[in-house]
Amino acid sequence: MPHKIDRDTRLCISLSGRPSNIGTRFHNHLYDALSLNYVYKAFTTGDLPGAITGIRALNIRGCGVSMPFKEACIPFLDDLDPSAAGLQSVNTIVNDTGAGGGEDGGSRLRGYNTDYLAVRTLLDRHDVSPGLPFALRGSGGMARAVLCALRDSGFTNGTLIARNEATGRRLADEYSLPWQPDTAGIAEGSLLVNVTPLGMAGGPEAGTLAFEPALVATAAQVFDVVAMPAETPLIRAAREAGKPVITGAEVIALQALEQFVLYTGVRPTDEQVAAAAAYSQA
Amino acid sequence: MPHKIDRDTRLCISLSGRPSNIGTRFHNHLYDALSLNYVYKAFTTGDLPGAITGIRALNIRGCGVSMPFKEACIPFLDDLDPSAAGLQSVNTIVNDTGAGGGEDGGSRLRGYNTDYLAVRTLLDRHDVSPGLPFALRGSGGMARAVLCALRDSGFTNGTLIARNEATGRRLADEYSLPWQPDTAGIAEGSLLVNVTPLGMAGGPEAGTLAFEPALVATAAQVFDVVAMPAETPLIRAAREAGKPVITGAEVIALQALEQFVLYTGVRPTDEQVAAAAAYSQA
Repeated sequence: MPHKIDRDTRLCISLSGRPSNIGTRFHNHLYDALSLNYVYKAFTTGDLPGAITGIRALNIRGCGVSMPFKEACIPFLDDLDPSAAGLQSVNTIVNDTGAGGGEDGGSRLRGYNTDYLAVRTLLDRHDVSPGLPFALRGSGGMARAVLCALRDSGFTNGTLIARNEATGRRLADEYSLPWQPDTAGIAEGSLLVNVTPLGMAGGPEAGTLAFEPALVATAAQVFDVVAMPAETPLIRAAREAGKPVITGAEVIALQALEQFVLYTGVRPTDEQVAAAAAYSQA
Repeated sequence: MPHKIDRDTRLCISLSGRPSNIGTRFHNHLYDALSLNYVYKAFTTGDLPGAITGIRALNIRGCGVSMPFKEACIPFLDDLDPSAAGLQSVNTIVNDTGAGGGEDGGSRLRGYNTDYLAVRTLLDRHDVSPGLPFALRGSGGMARAVLCALRDSGFTNGTLIARNEATGRRLADEYSLPWQPDTAGIAEGSLLVNVTPLGMAGGPEAGTLAFEPALVATAAQVFDVVAMPAETPLIRAAREAGKPVITGAEVIALQALEQFVLYTGVRPTDEQVAAAAAYSQA
């Protein structure tokens, strides 16, 4: 049963163009499971600076940030954690107040990127060798976060694949990688990384494999950032080919967990996280 | 069991120098009882304009306002309901957004004073004749709200009693009433109104009667705005003398109810309000 809200309850929020229920359900479920006096609520806004002013003035503890605010929020923060500074993209704001507890206006807003942190942790946890060549498909904001995590984890030998030449070349140049429009010539024994909507449930290409079965068959490992369905066509193909995989569900759960730890200072058990993640998707 | 928060849940808040749990418990209890998708949370702030900017930017539905913000908030609102305009004191802000649901920044903040509304309603509901002479004790913000309600309900023949001559004279002048420092010479058959902390539980004069027993014995009716304890020494004396009374608990419950109706558009039953009020004080 959810705890009762009182005057000491801390509020955490999210700001996005189109709020979903996932973060709200994940965080509130864990607050209840751990008996933490917090409450989480998703918002959208037509006035991003005003919303951030409100976070300070109301001493809101934390704020998840989604499209289209991840870069736009940066000028209104006080500083950036390295996870967000390299990318110049924020998905989590933490409000640390001084001794005055916010009543003195002494808020300090620090931006983090827990997508980046989650990818780095997963590369490490799944023992992905930085010596592997990688082929990353995608050219959006999340592709950039994954590329940055790969680079910072020591991966140097990569290829960027993107159908959109303009965004693909720009991102490839930023990370000094070759760009190509398709998967031709990708080396055997590569780490294959999908950061496009290919294979995403409900999308126009839900049945499409981001990498052909023949390439999956020769891959070292497969990483699909798509989280819905829990088993994407690419992950299914990789499992059938006996390849080790990293799933988008792991990324989502881990980035949300890191957000939760930043807000509360409490690290739930794996079982508690799994229960909250399952509940959040239900 | 409290409802689950989701992306459609509306947030109502309060702003005060020292948040209590009473409003939070009252409103959340009624939201649950009526299955309304709202949640209520009390805040303080060191940046009132910033907090109101946040109400607009996050499309927060409503905001209770307590000391020290009741007058200070007015410059940041779009308009005032007559209940607040006469007093120039706001205890409730309602955020009505345009068709864009707030995403277009089209918030409209209107200030109300439900203390004033509650006093007017109670004078009417208890059939207090405007022809009665009245003696009102007090010179603070709530005394001003009660005086304004008395005047607007047609009461013209009154005396203002206040130990503090400066604030007493100022308020008496504003309502064209005589001021006096004590109860000497108050007419028999008067409406006696206490709007001071005299008799308030936990205060330094918890045992003090705002009006002497001899005066209570000759009064027509007795109105004590002090809400804690539920039966103040003055109310007890009045009941023992067989006088009709209006209690502070009625004022608090009714002003909170009117706030609730303004936020949600739903009017709970008397039983639901009584249950929420009892819960809020527990």
